Amino acid sequence: MELHPELRQAIDDGVHGHLVTIGSDGAPQISMIWLGRDGDDLLIAHLGAGQKIRNLERDGRVAVSVELTGTAGPGLLRYAVLHGTATVSEGGAPQLLQELAPRFLGAGVKFPPMDEPPPGRIVRISVERVTGNGPWA
Amino acid sequence: MELHPELRQAIDDGVHGHLVTIGSDGAPQISMIWLGRDGDDLLIAHLGAGQKIRNLERDGRVAVSVELTGTAGPGLLRYAVLHGTATVSEGGAPQLLQELAPRFLGAGVKFPPMDEPPPGRIVRISVERVTGNGPWA
Repeated sequence: MELHPELRQAIDDGVHGHLVTIGSDGAPQISMIWLGRDGDDLLIAHLGAGQKIRNLERDGRVAVSVELTGTAGPGLLRYAVLHGTATVSEGGAPQLLQELAPRFLGAGVKFPPMDEPPPGRIVRISVERVTGNGPWA
Repeated sequence: MELHPELRQAIDDGVHGHLVTIGSDGAPQISMIWLGRDGDDLLIAHLGAGQKIRNLERDGRVAVSVELTGTAGPGLLRYAVLHGTATVSEGGAPQLLQELAPRFLGAGVKFPPMDEPPPGRIVRISVERVTGNGPWA
């Protein structure tokens, strides 16, 4: 689905996502991640093969929540929850991290810092539903 | 388990939680909530009976992530994920909301604003595990 322009802009400005995956026992797990995008798909880079990757390879159903600027309604932060399906592919993590790094670390910062980082993995999320409390919900 | 003092303080200062529950289809759902506590238990008030309440009555396994002040590691927000088991009880929501309201709405604000709010529900979470990237993880 098409992302609301405000969400596209928030991602392009640099936003952390609370990435929720489902563990092998069915319980929820949450990791904080740098959130990128390719058009309307969400992108996440991971240099290793942590629990969230194993979870997503088992069950691709995923949700990502992001805190946005300002409030909506009485005392509640504006936020969006993006629900979708993730696919994991090998390689490309250093390139995506370097693309996102200026948003989180400042202009010109080399990240990952090592000269030969592992290829890692890219998580691509096809968004199917958006909730929260803004015009996107 | 005992909450790290920094987490207790963050909750007492007022922090939003990303509350993750499991839907009837096993997919994750996220709601943003005001987070309170009673000792080491987390408390959430809900005036109605939304999807998250129905989810928790079916499966009490829950995770709450909170963004904290500052960063930890390169460009990543400090955060904590509190994993535990939720129990839902009837009544008490207006009182807890009024207790939390000054943290989110300012001193002296009446919330809920209505004179006879519904009793609602309290979600109490017994925390079993804390992850994230601070001294509590």
